[in-house]
Amino acid sequence: MFKLALCQLKGSYDKEESRQTVRRYVTEAASNGADVIALPEMWDCPYSNDYFREYAETADGETVKFMSDLAAELGVYLIGGSISEIDDDKVYNTAFCFDREGRMIGRHRKTHLFDIDVEGGIRFMESDTLTAGDSATVIDTEFGKIGVAICYDVRFPELFRRMTLDGARMVILPAAFNMTTGPAHWDITMRARALDNQIFFAANSPARDEEGIYVAYGNSCIVSPWGDFIAHADEKECILYADIDFGYEDSIRNQLPLLKHRRPELY
Amino acid sequence: MFKLALCQLKGSYDKEESRQTVRRYVTEAASNGADVIALPEMWDCPYSNDYFREYAETADGETVKFMSDLAAELGVYLIGGSISEIDDDKVYNTAFCFDREGRMIGRHRKTHLFDIDVEGGIRFMESDTLTAGDSATVIDTEFGKIGVAICYDVRFPELFRRMTLDGARMVILPAAFNMTTGPAHWDITMRARALDNQIFFAANSPARDEEGIYVAYGNSCIVSPWGDFIAHADEKECILYADIDFGYEDSIRNQLPLLKHRRPELY
Repeated sequence: MFKLALCQLKGSYDKEESRQTVRRYVTEAASNGADVIALPEMWDCPYSNDYFREYAETADGETVKFMSDLAAELGVYLIGGSISEIDDDKVYNTAFCFDREGRMIGRHRKTHLFDIDVEGGIRFMESDTLTAGDSATVIDTEFGKIGVAICYDVRFPELFRRMTLDGARMVILPAAFNMTTGPAHWDITMRARALDNQIFFAANSPARDEEGIYVAYGNSCIVSPWGDFIAHADEKECILYADIDFGYEDSIRNQLPLLKHRRPELY
Repeated sequence: MFKLALCQLKGSYDKEESRQTVRRYVTEAASNGADVIALPEMWDCPYSNDYFREYAETADGETVKFMSDLAAELGVYLIGGSISEIDDDKVYNTAFCFDREGRMIGRHRKTHLFDIDVEGGIRFMESDTLTAGDSATVIDTEFGKIGVAICYDVRFPELFRRMTLDGARMVILPAAFNMTTGPAHWDITMRARALDNQIFFAANSPARDEEGIYVAYGNSCIVSPWGDFIAHADEKECILYADIDFGYEDSIRNQLPLLKHRRPELY
């Protein structure tokens, strides 16, 4: 059993200010006993193709060092939401993950880029600026394996099955759905991934900023392996907590052995 | 554009009576203009391991002939829910499908058997009696391809992705969830399959019979490729109708091209 905390915070145009916000939230979550603390997608960069490259840092840059130091200082696992990463002139949407000593134990680059053009709704073409990552990410912790994916990745059930079969007991998803797809698809997609794979599933959105360049849906949530919400935020800034018990997950998997009943030869 | 009808009816212990019920429902649906008409899971047999073998018929038996004749007589596509089929001494949970001339255009044998033992809830072991089928089923109609699967098959997202990649524009699922898994998982699972695959999804339950040997959840429903319910029953006997427009499906797939954004090399 361990305590998970999702920080539903707002970043700003000023990186130093965003880091101070993160420090405040993560410190509060740690002081409330959280073992694993997550951040939202692109917390250090305005969510727009106009800014990804300008704000991008390398993996040995200041923001990664800040997260590593914070994890070590507080002695917590930190799933660093995502930041804009630059590597060999390519820009990625990347989740860096750290253990209690601040060691980087995983790095997920968003594998599916969000290119959408809904009639009368949102238009956004991430691939204009970003490059997609090339692998699924499952990190090892003292509690068990945890999968990490980012936002639009969640649309692809195959990726979550892959992580589950690779041993993930929980998936953490930094994500910023918008005001078109959020109300329509957020809750159901998060619940379905948890239920189908019999895993805990945690989606960490930024808080909604009606004045922002991108209006995120908020509604961070934590879902049980039975598909129930354990915790669910509204759109405002908050920290969402849940006690995660992989023993409960074992019990669900024993009663309804979905993973054993798969028939891969048919698919 | 075509009209789909789901017959949420109750079977009985008496096969002839069950067939008369089916005749009444299908005739009414056809008279209301339905082009494709579906029936619930195991409509001709009490849902219990005690009866599957006793009620089982071969593919050239009386009940299959009845369905074929009914489809031809009314000039409709008939997705025959499922019946207990015997073949080479093995018993299957089988959906026979017929075109407007009564020709058998598909036969789906349930590929995942329902073996569950929920603490304080339901215990059921289909595999004590039944044999699982060995393939996914997609049938051709004048409107396009339609996938057919049965009940517990729905728990496995891979099967629905397979049918979608094989060209299915809609899936019809005869299904009898129970009073444990129904309230917990029915709505969300049906919506998730539609949404993830951007297909129409129709789940046809028997009506609930509180006195029956198996108390089905009911709640037959038809979901759009955007994940919305187009039609949703309660637990009582009824016929559920929807106009199905694959042009709308195309438009969803153009605006949010999930199927194009898959990255199979990662899974």
